[in-house]
Order: sequence, then C-alpha cells, then structure tokens
Amino acid sequence: MTATLITNIGELTTNVAAHGDALGTLHDAAVLIEGDRIAWVGAGGEAAAVAARFAGASARAHLVDAGGRAVIPGFVDSHTHLVFGGDRADEFEARMTGTPYAAGGIRRTVAATRSASDEELRARLAAFVAELHGQGTTTFEIKTGYGLTVADEERLARLAAEVTPEVTFLGAHVVPAEYSERRVEYVELVCDAMLRACAPHSRWIDVFCERGAFTPEESRRILAAGVAHGLEPRVHGNQLGPGEGVRLAVELGAASVDHCTYLSDDDVAALAGSTTVATLLPGVEFSTRQPYPDARRLIDAGATVALASDCNPGSSFTSSMPLMIALAVREMGMSPAEAVWAATAGGAKALRRDDVGALAPGMRADLVMLDAPTRVHLAYRPGVPLVHTVWIGGAAL
Amino acid sequence: MTATLITNIGELTTNVAAHGDALGTLHDAAVLIEGDRIAWVGAGGEAAAVAARFAGASARAHLVDAGGRAVIPGFVDSHTHLVFGGDRADEFEARMTGTPYAAGGIRRTVAATRSASDEELRARLAAFVAELHGQGTTTFEIKTGYGLTVADEERLARLAAEVTPEVTFLGAHVVPAEYSERRVEYVELVCDAMLRACAPHSRWIDVFCERGAFTPEESRRILAAGVAHGLEPRVHGNQLGPGEGVRLAVELGAASVDHCTYLSDDDVAALAGSTTVATLLPGVEFSTRQPYPDARRLIDAGATVALASDCNPGSSFTSSMPLMIALAVREMGMSPAEAVWAATAGGAKALRRDDVGALAPGMRADLVMLDAPTRVHLAYRPGVPLVHTVWIGGAAL
Ligand SMILES: [Zn+2]
Ligand SMILES: [Zn+2]
Repeated sequence: MTATLITNIGELTTNVAAHGDALGTLHDAAVLIEGDRIAWVGAGGEAAAVAARFAGASARAHLVDAGGRAVIPGFVDSHTHLVFGGDRADEFEARMTGTPYAAGGIRRTVAATRSASDEELRARLAAFVAELHGQGTTTFEIKTGYGLTVADEERLARLAAEVTPEVTFLGAHVVPAEYSERRVEYVELVCDAMLRACAPHSRWIDVFCERGAFTPEESRRILAAGVAHGLEPRVHGNQLGPGEGVRLAVELGAASVDHCTYLSDDDVAALAGSTTVATLLPGVEFSTRQPYPDARRLIDAGATVALASDCNPGSSFTSSMPLMIALAVREMGMSPAEAVWAATAGGAKALRRDDVGALAPGMRADLVMLDAPTRVHLAYRPGVPLVHTVWIGGAAL
Repeated sequence: MTATLITNIGELTTNVAAHGDALGTLHDAAVLIEGDRIAWVGAGGEAAAVAARFAGASARAHLVDAGGRAVIPGFVDSHTHLVFGGDRADEFEARMTGTPYAAGGIRRTVAATRSASDEELRARLAAFVAELHGQGTTTFEIKTGYGLTVADEERLARLAAEVTPEVTFLGAHVVPAEYSERRVEYVELVCDAMLRACAPHSRWIDVFCERGAFTPEESRRILAAGVAHGLEPRVHGNQLGPGEGVRLAVELGAASVDHCTYLSDDDVAALAGSTTVATLLPGVEFSTRQPYPDARRLIDAGATVALASDCNPGSSFTSSMPLMIALAVREMGMSPAEAVWAATAGGAKALRRDDVGALAPGMRADLVMLDAPTRVHLAYRPGVPLVHTVWIGGAAL
C-alpha cells in the first residue's frame, strides 16, 4: 500500500470540530495517507513518531513538505449538469448586452446534446472532470436532463456514472418541445419508462420545481416515483420566485434543496428544523444578474448550507468552487470559514456522504494544498488559481 | 531567429479595427511569430503561402495547431502594487465578517515591507510574475508606495524595474506614520530626495489624490515634480468619493486616472474629451463590498476605459484579469468584447504603449490561447482557469 506523509502544513482544515474551532483547524500540522484513505492527522511535531508507528507504510512513504501552505479537504460540488453538447456563449453575450435573443434556453442544449455521439459527450465530460480536479474538486454530482427522451436520458445517466457515483436523474428538468402540448404524458414518461431506464445508473432523483417548469404536484409525483425505484430525492426549488420546492424537499426528507433564493420565514424555519441541506449556487446569480440568496439568514436560523457550482451552459457555466467561496463571502454574508466549510463538508452533507468533506482517519484521502498560507485566501484572492496540489483517493494529480 | 506558426485559430482577437469589428476579429485565422514580434496575421487558408514567403523563418517554424481555440493579445495590467511584504488576510476576514480590526491599512504593509530583505521581496515578486504570466498577463505595471522612506522607495523601484519597464513611483501613496504630524515635510521629501532616488528606476509618477490621502494641491505639486524629473503622470482618483483627481489628471495630460468610481458629469465629459484613460479596478469593489464604477456611462460618453487588477494586499489581492473581465460584464455594464478590449488594448493605452495590446505585424508577440472557442468565455466561465498557452515576446511559457 502506498503512503504519503505531508508535513509542515501551515493551516490544516479538517472539518472535525473536535479539534477546536468549527472547522477543526490545526496549525503546523501533518497528514498521513495510506492507500486511498487518511491514516492519521495531527501535530507536525508528532509526525516522525507516527511515521515510525506506521512503519510498514512509512518505509515507502512519499514525503511532501507543504512549506507552510494551507491544506483543506477536496471540494465537494454537489450540483452540476456536466453531460451536454454545445455551449450558449452567444446567448450569454446577448443577455449581458441586453440584446434580444430568441432561440435560447435549456431546449437548445437538449437539441445539441441529442445530436452529440457518446464519444463526443464522453470526451467533453473527461475535459470537465480534468477541469474540476485541477480546481480542487474531488467529489462531484452530475445530473441528466439534457436528453429528455428515454434513450437520451439513459445514455446521459450511463455516461455520468462512468465518472462519478453521484448521478442524478433529472428527466424533470423541463418539458421538452415535442411534449409542450402534452405535459401530463411527459410526466408519465418520466415516472415510468425514463425512470426505469435511468435508475440503474443513478443514485438520486431531482426535479425542477418552479413556475414554468414542474408544479409541486408533478414534482411530488416524480420524486415519489424515483423513491419507489430506490433513488433518493433532491430538489431544484425557490430559484426564480417563492414556491413550494423547499417545503416539498423537507417533507420528503430530501438530502438537499438547491437554489433557495426566494425563501419565506416558514421555508427557513423548515430547513432549520430538518436534515435537508440548503444548497446555494451563486454562479447562477453571478451569470444572470439576479439577486443572490441570503446565506446569512439561513445560517443564523440554524440551517445547513452547502455551496455548489450548478455548472451548466445556460445559467452558470463555471466549475470554480473557489469562485463560489469568494461570491459567498462578497455577496451572501458568509464568513470565509463558513464558505470553505459549505464547499467541502456542506457539499458532503448535501450528498449524504460521510467519507468525504473532512479529514480524519478512515476518510477518503481527498485533499487540496493551496498556494497560500490560509483558506481565507480563497476569498481574499478571488479568481487567482490557488490550487497547488490535489490528492484524490490518496493519489496526487 | 526562431519562428512559430499558429494555425487553426477559431477566433482571433487582433484589436486592429481595420479587420472589421471593433476588436478586429478573424475566424479560422493564423499568426506567424518571428523572434519576439508578430510577423503576420491572417486567414488560415493563407498560412501555407505566408509560411513559404517567410521561408527563412518557416524552415525552422514551430507549428502549433490551436484546434479551433480562441487567441487574444496578452493582458496588459496597467495598475498593480506587487512589491510588498506580508499579507492582510486577517484584516480581509475581519472586514468581511464585520469584526472590528484596529491595526490595518497601508501602513501595516509598509512596516512588513520595510522589514523584508531584498531577497525576500525579489522571491515574492518572482512568484507574482509567474502568477500573472500563468493567467495570461504579459505586460504589467508595478507601483512603489510601501516603502515611504528614500531608501525603501528606491529599493522597491529598483526591484520592480528588474521585472518590468513600467515602474511607477508612488511615494505619495499615504503619509507614513512617522510624518503624520509633519505632512508638509513628507510632501517635500517625496518631491525632492525620494523622487531623485526613484526616478532613475521609474517611468511614471503617481499620487493617491483622495480625501484622507493627498489633497489636489499636494497632488499637483508632486506630479509636477515628477514631470520635471522626466516621469510621466498618472493618478489614483475619485475612488472613495467625488474629488478633483480626474480633472487634475486630464489637465496634466496624464496617461490614466485610476478608480473613477465617483464621477460628476463634468468628470465624464473631461475624460471623453481627453487622451487620459479611465482605468477601472473592479477587484477593489469586489474585495471591499463597495459600489462598482459605471463603465457604461464612460464608454457611452466616449471615454477610453481600461481594466486593471490593482493587485495589492489591502483592497484587491487578485491578479486575475479574467476575473476583472467577468466583473466588468456582471457589474459594470460592459459587453464581453468591451471588457476584453479594455483588459488588453485599453491597458496598453493606459501605459501609452503601442507595441502591446494588439496583434499586428511588428508588435510584440504577446498572445494568449484560451481553452475556449471564444473570448466571451472569459466572462461566460468566471473563475475557471481558461489560459491554455501564453507567448511572451514570441516564447511559449
Ligand atoms: Zn441546476
Ligand atoms: Zn492602486
């Protein structure tokens, strides 16, 4: 079993609160990795003794001197839409310049995705995975939702499952053009043949519960069908206006409800009293000039907040978790520490994963060494690529 | 002489308006580099014939297939403060969390800079230069202003001059603590001994003309002294409130007035009728939660706008020109094309350089190939590192 001993870590964010502050911060720390797991985390002064104790491993341990840099858990991006064809740069440009633009929207990406071959989508996906890894994202979810036929949704779920275990069936992304006069039939298709085709490749079921997308009644029916097929629910809700997405998610015990831009006091209270994570996606508000969700209000009420990219070609074509952190601090009232927690441990909670998002013995050795002395620099140095080294399952990229 | 022929460029931004649109955009284009200069720019179909014409060079030409990617001129960052010691991450964190923080400000960086050795500052600077280059910045200005003694300002100017010809003497950054009761003496020092020590290493003279920093009268005197020593003027003005910085800059024919957040109609008209560039620094507003300057108003009035990072440890610790572009589009009413122009050709105008900021025969071969099919992606994909290859003076990094 290969082993790596990282010493001289100036600031180690473990997200294990037992170490003291909420983020379990250690200074002058060290981490021992064995195989794909964390074997030990502790004070730098103990590293030599620990390495001796783990003699079998340490004899072959690769030694890494962090040079005082900060190390954090790998980012967990719990919300992406990364399997698609084409892009919509022209539509983005038109939106930003106030130019009328007719043929936009999700349906345009659906057309481009349907016409792309498996090999094209696979190559695109591989490029995105490299892009995510290079920015420190070590766990990520991918949704279907640009196929919207049984065959196309099945292949998107299948291709996504080649690169992540966190695949979400989102046949209920939008009613496709060919069903625009037959939405009841489309909901039926999603709940039946499409779900049966996608469930074998998926862990999650999601629905875009919003005015203009799916009604609360349709959403409830679709999520219940997914649960009946062994999928776990999550919800897109309360993005464009007030709605029932949050309450539905909480009622169903969903792992997460995502967007949460327009919340009533009842919504906030419901989230605070639940195990449903409020996942905020500030890349969307950045890229559409919409008002940002109020993270401060959620945190102060006691809700659990995660940050994710929502990476998609329409409303948020960014995969940068560091930018999500910087935006959360600039625009959403989060402290740098809260934002880093939300982008790591928060994302893990939103995916109900207890093996990632924190650094403790037995957890996956997914770590990011920053080219900076503290995690605060992720917000303090916006836009600057600060990822120095990424370990995924113990292997340095 | 080495030569490089870049073919299959999906979108080439030349900033040479003769090619058609304002950014001189060519599709399916090619560029021939000879030595450190652009030798030819044109249609991909002509590249073979051109390479034959330049036979001496092309015999040894390194061939690069851009694979349909976009190529733009290297970014010109006309405003940075990159020679300093320490950082102020704790002060940033306090500001973002509303925590009182006493000992902040420029003077703290002055203390850290004075106590740093030449070697420490040189190593730090080398790391910043690598960071800038990696993000596609191929020309950058550096200001002094964290020394504020004759000896320290001289060494900051000297160290900066080791990495760029665009050195700005900014002894008038702030009145140092030891002169707080003797500001007349400090202005005298700046205009006399400090200027004499720094002028040999500097091209520019700058002053922070703002309530709380230097008055218009002090600013005028300092800039005049610099001009008398052969330096060219530029001004920090109208950042924190209305003021006379813009009018002073225009009156003196300064190359640029930087910040321009609070402008009267007269200020805008003065800029529009001048050769003084309005350099906007949205990293500052991002990092301090201040309102952004109104680029749209300036452009619509006919003023020339540049974008720069203001990279410094207090108010904007980012060196990311792509983020400046994304912020200009999100927050300042600029189109993606205007923002890319402002970050390249605009920066060149703000530094009165006619050899960078555009791609035409005879200009420096400073180019950036993006991992994207269009320059719009710089705003469309915020935070994502999109720099694929950087050429500086014809050499690929
Ligand atoms: Zn989404
Ligand atoms: Zn400045």
